[in-house]
Amino acid sequence: MSTRRGARLLVVCLVLLLAPVSLCAQTDPLPSWNDGPAKQSIVAFVQKAIDSAGPQFVPPEQRIATFDNDGTLWSEQPIYFQFAFALARVKALAPKHPEWKTTQPFKAVLDGDMKALAASGEKGMVQLLLATHTGMTTDEFTKTVTEWIATAQHPRFKRPYTELVFQPMLELLAYLRANGFKTYIVSGGTVEFMRPWTERVYGIPPEQVVGTSFVTTYKLGADGKPSLLRQPKIDFVDDGPGKPVNIQKFIGRRPVLAFGNSDGDHQMLQWTAAGDGARFMGLVHHTDAAREWAYDRQSHIGRLDKALDEAQRRGWTVVDMKSDWKKIFAFE
Amino acid sequence: MSTRRGARLLVVCLVLLLAPVSLCAQTDPLPSWNDGPAKQSIVAFVQKAIDSAGPQFVPPEQRIATFDNDGTLWSEQPIYFQFAFALARVKALAPKHPEWKTTQPFKAVLDGDMKALAASGEKGMVQLLLATHTGMTTDEFTKTVTEWIATAQHPRFKRPYTELVFQPMLELLAYLRANGFKTYIVSGGTVEFMRPWTERVYGIPPEQVVGTSFVTTYKLGADGKPSLLRQPKIDFVDDGPGKPVNIQKFIGRRPVLAFGNSDGDHQMLQWTAAGDGARFMGLVHHTDAAREWAYDRQSHIGRLDKALDEAQRRGWTVVDMKSDWKKIFAFE
Repeated sequence: MSTRRGARLLVVCLVLLLAPVSLCAQTDPLPSWNDGPAKQSIVAFVQKAIDSAGPQFVPPEQRIATFDNDGTLWSEQPIYFQFAFALARVKALAPKHPEWKTTQPFKAVLDGDMKALAASGEKGMVQLLLATHTGMTTDEFTKTVTEWIATAQHPRFKRPYTELVFQPMLELLAYLRANGFKTYIVSGGTVEFMRPWTERVYGIPPEQVVGTSFVTTYKLGADGKPSLLRQPKIDFVDDGPGKPVNIQKFIGRRPVLAFGNSDGDHQMLQWTAAGDGARFMGLVHHTDAAREWAYDRQSHIGRLDKALDEAQRRGWTVVDMKSDWKKIFAFE
Repeated sequence: MSTRRGARLLVVCLVLLLAPVSLCAQTDPLPSWNDGPAKQSIVAFVQKAIDSAGPQFVPPEQRIATFDNDGTLWSEQPIYFQFAFALARVKALAPKHPEWKTTQPFKAVLDGDMKALAASGEKGMVQLLLATHTGMTTDEFTKTVTEWIATAQHPRFKRPYTELVFQPMLELLAYLRANGFKTYIVSGGTVEFMRPWTERVYGIPPEQVVGTSFVTTYKLGADGKPSLLRQPKIDFVDDGPGKPVNIQKFIGRRPVLAFGNSDGDHQMLQWTAAGDGARFMGLVHHTDAAREWAYDRQSHIGRLDKALDEAQRRGWTVVDMKSDWKKIFAFE
C-alpha cells in the first residue's frame, strides 16, 4: 500500500470516527415493526426531532421520552404481574400470619378462591399490596423482588415474566437512546417493584423509573446503622392525572414523546401533546388474542376507551399489535 | 510536509481521539483548592472509585454524587436566597393584596420591619412561601424565578445571586462528572425554585434536582389545554431525614458521595456512609468571615453542630473554607 493510499485510508477512518452513529448504522433499527403507519410515524418524529436545521428540532437535553410499563412495555394479563408477585408473597408469608386463614382478602388468596378475591374489590387489593409491599426496609424489599422476578413464571407462557416484554418496544427504546433521548418509565405500578430489574431488561436505570410510591421513613438503628422503612401507607398514585404531576415532580421537563396503552396514560399524553416542537403520542392497542391478548374499552385491566377516542380524533399513533408488530416477544 | 510525516500525524491524532479524556487533561482539575487534606481526600476517593482493578471500584452506573445546595454550592447568608426571592415577590404582588398592608407577616415585609418578620417565626415563613410560591401554574412560576434570578442582586456583593456559587465546588462537580459520576442536588430548598437555572450555573439538569415540593394538580382547561397547578400545601420537606428518603424515592440508588454543610445534611451523609465500597462524605465549614461568612453551631441558618461532631469522630472530610479554598467566588 502506498503511503498516499495509507494516508487517505486514515482520513476515511478519522471521518468515520467523527461521524454520528446514525451514518454507520444502515440497518433497520426497528426490525420487529412492520412497515406501516405506526413505524413510519416513529421514524418521521425522530428525524424531525434530531434535524438541527429543521423547524421542529429538539435540543438533546430536552429529548425526554416517557413510557408506561404494564401493557406498554410488557404484558399485563391475566393479572398485573406485580399483583402476581403480591399473591406469591401472601402465600410465602402465610406461616407468619395464622390470622390470614380466616381473614379476607388473605383467605381468598390462600384458598385460591378467585371469586372471593374479586369480591374484595379495590379495598382488598390495597390491603394485599400493603401487607406484601410494606413493613420492611427498602433493601429487604429489593431482595424479595429480585428473587421473585428471577424464578416466577407466567401461567400462560411458562416463562419468566421479564421475557414477556415487547420486542418492538425494546427496539424503540434503543432507537430513541441512539438518537439522544433519555428514556423513562412512568408507571401506575409501584416504583420499587420495577427498579431492581428495569436496567437489565429495558436498559432504563433506577433513577429513570417513576411510579406509585409508599411512605418511607428514615431510622437510625441502635447499632448506628441507618435504614429506610416502607410504611403501610400509599404516598402517591402515579396513574391518570398523577402521571403528568409526577413527571413534573421527578423530571421537571415536559416529555416530547409519551407512550401508553390505557386511559391511565391519557393525561400523560395530553400533557406531552401540549408542548411546542416535535411531539409524539403513542398507544399500544392490544389486538392480538393469538399471540398476546385482545382487549380495550371493556377490560378491567388496562381499559383503553377515552384515550383511544382522543388519539383517533387528534391523529396520535395507535399501534395495532396484530398488524404493526412482526414479533411481539423475543422468544416467538 | 511529506506524506509519511502526514500519515504519522494522523496516527497521533487517531490515538488522541481514542485516548481517555484523563490522559489529555494533565492540568489540575481542582485549581481553586489548596493542596491540603480536603483536596487530597477528594482525589484519593475518585482514584479508588474509578480503579477497576482495585478493591473499592465503583461501577459507572453506581457513581451517584449528591450535593446540598444552600451553603454547599452557593452562599446562604444573610438569608436563604430563596427567601430573598419570596420577599421580592411579596412586594411585587402587594398591589393585588391590599389586605397585606395590615396582616402579618406580610405587613412586616412591606414595612421592611425585620424584627416583626423574625417574630412571625416558622409559621410566618411558611405563609410567605405559600403566598409567593403557589397559586399559579408550573410554567408561570418558572417564568417568575427565571426573571428574578436574572436581575436580583445580593445585598452585600451587589452581584447576581448565581455569582455567589463556590468556584471550588463547581470544579468538584466537573471533576466528578469527568470521572463518570452523575451529580445531583438534594436540597431543602423547593425544587422548582432551583430547576430553571441549575443546568446553566452548575451543569446539573432539572431531572437531577431533588428538593422540597408543593402539592401539584393536573387540570384540563375549557380550551382543552392542560396545566399543572401549584397548590398551597407542602408535599414533602427534603431536609434532615427527608433527604435519604427522597434520594431513595427519586434516584433509587444510595449515593457514593454526599456533600453538605449543615445538620440538615446529617442523615444524607449517614445514609451514604452506610454503603459498601468507596465512600466520600463531605461538609463545607463556613470559616471565612472576610471572603464569605463564618458560622456553625450557633447559627439560625445552616446550623452545623451534630453533623460536625460525627464528621470529626468518623473522619469525614470537613472543608475549612478559609484554609482549603484559594478562591471562593469566581469574581474574586
